[in-house]
Amino acid sequence: MKPRFYFAPHTCALAPHIVLEHLGLDYEPVKIDFRANQQQSPEYLAINPKGRVPALVTDRGVVTETPALLLYLAQQRPDAGLAPLDDPFALAELQAVNSWLCSTVHVAHAHRPRAYRWADDPAAQQSMKAKVPQNMGDHFDWIERDLLRGPWVMGERFSIADPYLFAITAWLPSDGVAVERFPRVADHHARMQALPAVQRALAQHG
Amino acid sequence: MKPRFYFAPHTCALAPHIVLEHLGLDYEPVKIDFRANQQQSPEYLAINPKGRVPALVTDRGVVTETPALLLYLAQQRPDAGLAPLDDPFALAELQAVNSWLCSTVHVAHAHRPRAYRWADDPAAQQSMKAKVPQNMGDHFDWIERDLLRGPWVMGERFSIADPYLFAITAWLPSDGVAVERFPRVADHHARMQALPAVQRALAQHG
Repeated sequence: MKPRFYFAPHTCALAPHIVLEHLGLDYEPVKIDFRANQQQSPEYLAINPKGRVPALVTDRGVVTETPALLLYLAQQRPDAGLAPLDDPFALAELQAVNSWLCSTVHVAHAHRPRAYRWADDPAAQQSMKAKVPQNMGDHFDWIERDLLRGPWVMGERFSIADPYLFAITAWLPSDGVAVERFPRVADHHARMQALPAVQRALAQHG
Repeated sequence: MKPRFYFAPHTCALAPHIVLEHLGLDYEPVKIDFRANQQQSPEYLAINPKGRVPALVTDRGVVTETPALLLYLAQQRPDAGLAPLDDPFALAELQAVNSWLCSTVHVAHAHRPRAYRWADDPAAQQSMKAKVPQNMGDHFDWIERDLLRGPWVMGERFSIADPYLFAITAWLPSDGVAVERFPRVADHHARMQALPAVQRALAQHG
């Protein structure tokens, strides 16, 4: 069976989508429409009961959660070198980046479109949304200064951290943060954008 | 050099702390006092600029972020079998659990003690705190029903997901959620608590 890859346009699913294209893996893309709340449909919840994307349906079962899926994809083609699979310390550094992007930066962003997750009061949701530019700005200050080694996230070698940073950087304008504040991040974003795999994935996001 | 393990009592650092004890690894524990805001001291920020725990200082550098550190520790003693290192799909399932615990369940909890991260307005912070019992309850409903395979998180084999679930389950009472609502989780917690490695780690948390 060809793996089925469930994504919603311009979500964090863009990261593994780029990796699927980069590695030339055979897969069937399935677009989920968040505006129609399709991620909460019984059909999709049968695939991922968490009602989130991405999800990759394989012969053995379903892989969810972006950092886990990115590592899984890197392991499908070890020779492509998208993760230092034989060096536990280097792998831990890479996984720390992806885990932080997921649990801190993605979460900071989510307080704008999905503030309702953490408070019922509309005024509180508004207050959370108001703080998103500051939090995203602070996180990207640190990415610019420290996390992004250059030219790629982990240094000389392109890895599964690069598509993830790319997908999250793309959210900055909608979060009210100018990418131009972070020249090294902006440079990384432009170089990513030029990659054929990125263009092939983006074409499917519309 | 003996690795130095920085932790704060009863934070998520308890999870890798249990693994350090379980594997019998040689390490020097260093307790960070959150009440004195020691995680923001210049000395600690030189170790982990993110101002968070856990952090493991090794000969090669510092490992941060709980899911990354847990995998790193499992790789130090592959024979202990704390992660299915040679089975990408099984590893992805395990990493998906730990990533979700980190980015969704830990984050849901953090909206009680650290609501200030996501809104400046005290009323908004209050509103976030008020929703924590519901969110933690919902997440643990799903852990009880689906995620926890039993007897251990991933099924028959004890893994790095077990100390992580244990550390987070311990927060439920302070979040206003009765562990007894989730009999299978409560059973897992009691069995974890009985393990010598867990007792040795907890003794250091005071």
